[in-house]
Amino acid sequence: MFKKVLIANRGEIALRVLRTCREMGISTVAVYSKADKDSLHVRFADEAVCIGPAASSESYLNIPNIIAAAEITNADAIHPGYGFLSENARFSRICSENGIKFIGPSPEMIERMGDKATAKETMKAAGVPTIPGSEGLLDSYEEALKIAKEIGFPVMLKATAGGGGKGMRAVWKAEDLLKAWESARQEAGAAFGNDGMYMEKLIEEPRHIEIQVVGDQTGKACHLSERDCSIQRRHQKLTEETPSPFMTAKLRKSMGEAAVKACEYIKYEGAGTIEFLVDKHRNFYFMEMNTRIQVEHPITEQVIDYDLIREQIKVAAGITISGKNYEPKLHSIECRINAEDPANDFRPSPGTITTFHAPGGHGVRLDTHVYAGYSIPPYYDSMIAKLITTAQTREEAIDKMRRALDEFVIEGIKTTIPFHRALMDDPDYIAGNYTTKFMETFKYKDA
Amino acid sequence: MFKKVLIANRGEIALRVLRTCREMGISTVAVYSKADKDSLHVRFADEAVCIGPAASSESYLNIPNIIAAAEITNADAIHPGYGFLSENARFSRICSENGIKFIGPSPEMIERMGDKATAKETMKAAGVPTIPGSEGLLDSYEEALKIAKEIGFPVMLKATAGGGGKGMRAVWKAEDLLKAWESARQEAGAAFGNDGMYMEKLIEEPRHIEIQVVGDQTGKACHLSERDCSIQRRHQKLTEETPSPFMTAKLRKSMGEAAVKACEYIKYEGAGTIEFLVDKHRNFYFMEMNTRIQVEHPITEQVIDYDLIREQIKVAAGITISGKNYEPKLHSIECRINAEDPANDFRPSPGTITTFHAPGGHGVRLDTHVYAGYSIPPYYDSMIAKLITTAQTREEAIDKMRRALDEFVIEGIKTTIPFHRALMDDPDYIAGNYTTKFMETFKYKDA
Repeated sequence: MFKKVLIANRGEIALRVLRTCREMGISTVAVYSKADKDSLHVRFADEAVCIGPAASSESYLNIPNIIAAAEITNADAIHPGYGFLSENARFSRICSENGIKFIGPSPEMIERMGDKATAKETMKAAGVPTIPGSEGLLDSYEEALKIAKEIGFPVMLKATAGGGGKGMRAVWKAEDLLKAWESARQEAGAAFGNDGMYMEKLIEEPRHIEIQVVGDQTGKACHLSERDCSIQRRHQKLTEETPSPFMTAKLRKSMGEAAVKACEYIKYEGAGTIEFLVDKHRNFYFMEMNTRIQVEHPITEQVIDYDLIREQIKVAAGITISGKNYEPKLHSIECRINAEDPANDFRPSPGTITTFHAPGGHGVRLDTHVYAGYSIPPYYDSMIAKLITTAQTREEAIDKMRRALDEFVIEGIKTTIPFHRALMDDPDYIAGNYTTKFMETFKYKDA
Repeated sequence: MFKKVLIANRGEIALRVLRTCREMGISTVAVYSKADKDSLHVRFADEAVCIGPAASSESYLNIPNIIAAAEITNADAIHPGYGFLSENARFSRICSENGIKFIGPSPEMIERMGDKATAKETMKAAGVPTIPGSEGLLDSYEEALKIAKEIGFPVMLKATAGGGGKGMRAVWKAEDLLKAWESARQEAGAAFGNDGMYMEKLIEEPRHIEIQVVGDQTGKACHLSERDCSIQRRHQKLTEETPSPFMTAKLRKSMGEAAVKACEYIKYEGAGTIEFLVDKHRNFYFMEMNTRIQVEHPITEQVIDYDLIREQIKVAAGITISGKNYEPKLHSIECRINAEDPANDFRPSPGTITTFHAPGGHGVRLDTHVYAGYSIPPYYDSMIAKLITTAQTREEAIDKMRRALDEFVIEGIKTTIPFHRALMDDPDYIAGNYTTKFMETFKYKDA
């Protein structure tokens, strides 16, 4: 086992990793930017090294400084957390070249999964369903029609240069395709000076459901069931839960098997997440793989009594896994508490926390790096806490979340606590009736 | 289900009950003494009624004021918590006479289990092992010898007027009995002016292991396995864990069955705890029954994913239980954090908390009613928080407790945090090798 782990991150995930290291009897090295000198991960670590000024590019993304910090402290492994260098193949390679174990997959694996097209090809080859569509650009209307008939309506026509919905058309039946083709090309040409189009199957009422996987160095893998992350705003997850209210035993089995197959095919090492889109018919399609721990990992830990960071460290140290898959035994929900003003288009709200009172008691977990008197630096992610509730049923987990949000007092800044509190009262949310489009219609109003 | 519950208690247990009520959609009424006006249970309750001055006798034990508070707020049930009126048969009776459901057993049940002699007789009749001994006082040495031979050596001779170990003798074989008998009687006569003696079987290397039970209004009962509470100082529990490191599957089955048999025999309603002494041969003997929720109930909740307060409320509302028993699936430890100075003979240390930083993260639960700025009133129990860690193994739960204690910052007063931290490093504790005598030899020194 490692003797000393350097944690190349900040905020709650740095503290999360530090906690497990401490529980495992592993010494910890915190690195921090000048803006983070009062952070809890710095206070609680056995050693701490300042790696640069506030700007991430000069500190948390500064590979030479981080490697130097590992070398002067004699760390034998580096945990990258999420974000920053966690999916940086070059960093993984440099760690390895310097004889420091990168707690995560190999550089080749990161590269393979980091490039979307390569990842999709790999998954296809592993037999994992991917979103059907044209291979590259469409030459003509006739080709578009042919492919649409192959993959089945509805389909999406998408401008290759597109963005913001421009040059994009949903087509539900063959007789509408020609008109859509012509108008989309025209729009794309006008907007981007490029009328190149491709086609994908339209995912009806899409849900973002991801499967947590763990693979060891022998190539064995297991899955730890799903997390539903459909509640998103501009592709930022706001709240997650497991099990997914949309899940069935049959779908979990299929998705879990596909995820394990994918991991074993690529001999994936470490904790990872395979993100899928699931349509209203419960067809599922590979979206991308995250080759790192995810923000929302605690809900998985809660429902299967598993410490995922410990598992990452064990696997990195060469310990093999049993290969047993895990089913959720409970229900768990995470709310991301951000220093943002939900009444003001989620505008960031950095500043000093004057009062901080954490909720507690039965079924409540809080992962946070902040405290009363802490000043949130404006340079980084706005997430300041993850509030997680766990209970025997989804209804009870929601009840508990309402109660915990009501108890949670953070003063001095705006937070997303009232947004989550309103969400927990939304009839569609309560019914588990939501897709990735949910936030397009959900209206939060300040009380 | 009840619409409004009055919580006739203070501190962490008032908050604990309030939380579950809120999660169940039940309105809450807090009652408080003048000394507790800034308490969290007062702030978080839907309504709060001041029931008197600081002294418990005039507030938390003031039955007329509490009943009046329930009547003016239209509460349909009262949860008594632990301590104060929770095992007061008269209070249970008055609640009932006023049409308010007392969340706990009937007055008759409280009386039956509250009187030690009656409780022991009842348990004997139910077939639960009790500590064998003389029925009442011994007439002569000859009778003492006869009984000692019947119940088997070793035995304890005890002065009926005894206390502080005076007039008490452990006797390991027949030939030593006469000398012990004479010297104990002499000592008792000199110390108390009363040389009456009785005899009990000596419990070798006693452990305090209790079984959590729940019974419903139909007389059905189940057990939720054990808690080991052997680490005590002057009969005050300091830390508890489940499973007991001394437990075996066979012993759990026997103790669990005895506990359920006892409950069903007396048709026990509500949550209760049957406390046993277990000797080194794993014989177990009934000590007493607590007809209320206990301080250490969270460790049971953690290992079986159960909310005991919810269960109390449901059973009080007439909902029946399945009768299924529960086995621990995880390991959980509770440390009672008291406002006491462990380096100074655990002297109470009331005062104002200037800094309060709670530990958090995976496997950590905190039940507390205090916060930064809170002044601990000197009138009540010194417990200010219960820190609970839960993990897959005992070793991991201890590792987690060490980590959580290290993170826990309370400034302005002395607390028992450093005592628990030292305990978690004690080789005997780590080995699970402890009895109720543990604190007689464990030496805590200020770091």
